[in-house]
Amino acid sequence: MQNISAYIEKNKVRFIDELFELLRIPSVSSKNEHKEDMYRACDFLKKSLLDAGAENAEVISTEGHPVVYAEKIIDPSLPSVMVYGHYDVQPPEPLDLWKSPPFEPEIREDRIWGRGADDDKGQLFMHVKAFEFMNRTDSLPCNVKFMIEGEEEIGSPSLGKFCMENKDKLHCDVILVSDTSMIARDVPSITTGLRGLSYFEVEVAGPGRDLHSGLFGGAVVNPVNVLAKMIASLTDDNNRITIPGFYDDVLEVSPREREEMAKAPFNIDNYKKEIEVDELDGESGYSTMERTGIRPSLDVNGIWGGYTGEGAKTILPAKAYAKISIRLVPNQSSKKTDELFIRHFKSIAPPGVRVSANVLHGGEGYVSPVDHPAYLAASRAYETSFGKKPIPFRSGGSIPIISLFEKVLGVKSILMGFGLESDAIHSPNENYPLWNFYKGIETITYFYREYMKGDN
Amino acid sequence: MQNISAYIEKNKVRFIDELFELLRIPSVSSKNEHKEDMYRACDFLKKSLLDAGAENAEVISTEGHPVVYAEKIIDPSLPSVMVYGHYDVQPPEPLDLWKSPPFEPEIREDRIWGRGADDDKGQLFMHVKAFEFMNRTDSLPCNVKFMIEGEEEIGSPSLGKFCMENKDKLHCDVILVSDTSMIARDVPSITTGLRGLSYFEVEVAGPGRDLHSGLFGGAVVNPVNVLAKMIASLTDDNNRITIPGFYDDVLEVSPREREEMAKAPFNIDNYKKEIEVDELDGESGYSTMERTGIRPSLDVNGIWGGYTGEGAKTILPAKAYAKISIRLVPNQSSKKTDELFIRHFKSIAPPGVRVSANVLHGGEGYVSPVDHPAYLAASRAYETSFGKKPIPFRSGGSIPIISLFEKVLGVKSILMGFGLESDAIHSPNENYPLWNFYKGIETITYFYREYMKGDN
Repeated sequence: MQNISAYIEKNKVRFIDELFELLRIPSVSSKNEHKEDMYRACDFLKKSLLDAGAENAEVISTEGHPVVYAEKIIDPSLPSVMVYGHYDVQPPEPLDLWKSPPFEPEIREDRIWGRGADDDKGQLFMHVKAFEFMNRTDSLPCNVKFMIEGEEEIGSPSLGKFCMENKDKLHCDVILVSDTSMIARDVPSITTGLRGLSYFEVEVAGPGRDLHSGLFGGAVVNPVNVLAKMIASLTDDNNRITIPGFYDDVLEVSPREREEMAKAPFNIDNYKKEIEVDELDGESGYSTMERTGIRPSLDVNGIWGGYTGEGAKTILPAKAYAKISIRLVPNQSSKKTDELFIRHFKSIAPPGVRVSANVLHGGEGYVSPVDHPAYLAASRAYETSFGKKPIPFRSGGSIPIISLFEKVLGVKSILMGFGLESDAIHSPNENYPLWNFYKGIETITYFYREYMKGDN
Repeated sequence: MQNISAYIEKNKVRFIDELFELLRIPSVSSKNEHKEDMYRACDFLKKSLLDAGAENAEVISTEGHPVVYAEKIIDPSLPSVMVYGHYDVQPPEPLDLWKSPPFEPEIREDRIWGRGADDDKGQLFMHVKAFEFMNRTDSLPCNVKFMIEGEEEIGSPSLGKFCMENKDKLHCDVILVSDTSMIARDVPSITTGLRGLSYFEVEVAGPGRDLHSGLFGGAVVNPVNVLAKMIASLTDDNNRITIPGFYDDVLEVSPREREEMAKAPFNIDNYKKEIEVDELDGESGYSTMERTGIRPSLDVNGIWGGYTGEGAKTILPAKAYAKISIRLVPNQSSKKTDELFIRHFKSIAPPGVRVSANVLHGGEGYVSPVDHPAYLAASRAYETSFGKKPIPFRSGGSIPIISLFEKVLGVKSILMGFGLESDAIHSPNENYPLWNFYKGIETITYFYREYMKGDN
């Protein structure tokens, strides 16, 4: 195998140029105005994969945004690895907080800045470049498939059907995903758990129009005051979720496993400093890592209602809205949670308002086994490139499609994410360090070698 | 005295044309972008008052928006009536709910539609036209002054100083104000009480940037969840305000006075229908009219934080904001309430967030005596024009400057408002019935006659 480090060094300017071309496409899946941009991103990836050595690549329509599929079958009797990624990105708002425009990528402080730099354009592009290297150096040891979707950030509504309809085409032995983070640059880790998600938009409607808050205040039920009370009541003083039945399917992690988890390096002062908070808080009786790794949580993602402009406007608002999401642990059902939440939320509405609650998206959690041959191969690959064994790690995030892959395709996914917490994914000033980008390409090529070599 | 009804009939097209000219000026006091419009409104009013017969009229600068002052002194030994009104209007947002553009007034269903149609351009213009009638028919029985400000909707921050600096000029025996509503078209009423106001903007700041709600949810204090809990805790299950010391200065109204108040005609079904709610709720132990008339209240006027766009965005917001206002009853101090609220609101902030609270505006409540000669004159004027005695009525709204007039100028104000609850002031589709506009002009001219005639 020709030296991957040398290959990266020689081609890195081109790699970045190509990635920048992809980052410039504002492929925001949640907004209809970007429909054309989704196709532009697909066409770019299709061409990239063909250039990198795919035998064929296609853009396949779905009921939502299209999927890019590509493959190179060197020998049908050899194992197949499928790479999953997504070309869609989160909305860039609030725009005024970006130091450089979200869709005009640039390099500063050895990082790539722009929406999608990490999540997931930057990370999926590492796979395209690792694939290119193996093709150009005739070192591809197995069959490779790529499935890149455009709806991950909105809950992958079309990909389940796509997988069911294309089971044969998508047949593979393992799925590789780079869409998660490492504990730290010098603490490589592989994500072995993900949380599920139930995401709602709720509306509390009161009077038929905004009323004068002087003439009516005190006599008419105020939808914002009500929404505040309803949200407040969803968690108790111990930060436990109060929805009846919510914890029924939550599996308590054994004391022994929690002890093991506690050994992972974690510096709480750095964590607080990184996100600029003085104090942390969460469910009583659990550590910070446990609160995101093995426990469910409930967050308001957005709230709005009434007058939000400059100065004072004395109205009693007609309506109030919130986006509320619940993170679930493996074994909790997203669908059951949807039903529990909606029933409960409506039940706590006081007289004088009309309440609606709708599911925006959701998905199940996932646990990956640490004795799977592909996990072990990934572990050895990290050891080669980072010089140390990666730590298995349960993330608080959700990639709902991963549990669906297991259900529909019967295949486990290995979450080789190379992001960092400081990458600010989903936030203004998303970025991805060049070092991680190149290290990811390197580690991925080692994975293929280790996976085909087997554990001996 | 020539017949006012005939005069109105003859001139009503011109009256409306002139009022529309004023309504077309978007004199929104809370937004800096309308600075020029404030001067345009002043110039229009100055010209209108001179045309109507004022001896002199001027636009006087303040630290904020200018004041229009005009006068006609027919005999320094006669009493002087001062008309107070305001040419500024509430912001028109949300624009998409208006059936016709807010600053393009039009007549439909015998009503004038547009921002300011009632509050207060339409109502103050009745005084200009009543003044015009008396001048043109040589029937003005006393001296008249006009003081029209441009900051009422933002709490009149400059008018107190203006009054103090112009005490001599503003010397008068009574102040007439049309900036309130009647109980109903066929139930004339005079507002004898107003509530005070303390209006705040609060900010709850958590992490230094929006975080991924999966990676951090459950471990990091969410400012929106916190703000909801803080707002929820400001009122208890009986809808009483929980701020320590808040009720100390609230005077309980005697059972006898409450019995008298309960005699005012009030149809709760019509009230609910008018504002499109099924149920009303408020402080336990008080009726709907009492809840707005003689009891304080706390309302969120606006709330915002996190992602409020289309679809789902899984962020844990960095900040959350709310506009919160408290209506006060006479004898409560707005300044003391400001201090109580800010101290309390900061004290209930949990660890992990930084809370700030700032006063946006405020003012004291007011009670007007029903045995004042000007009240009695107004009462007789209504009896003449409406054919029935008006009901003294305590409104829930606030005109903070009224209590200041009493303090600085030592003069009582008579609140001859001709609006209706259905006028949707401060809301989209503000309107003012033509009938009320003309009836107001008529009643105002009778007031002058009755006031000079005295009670005999």
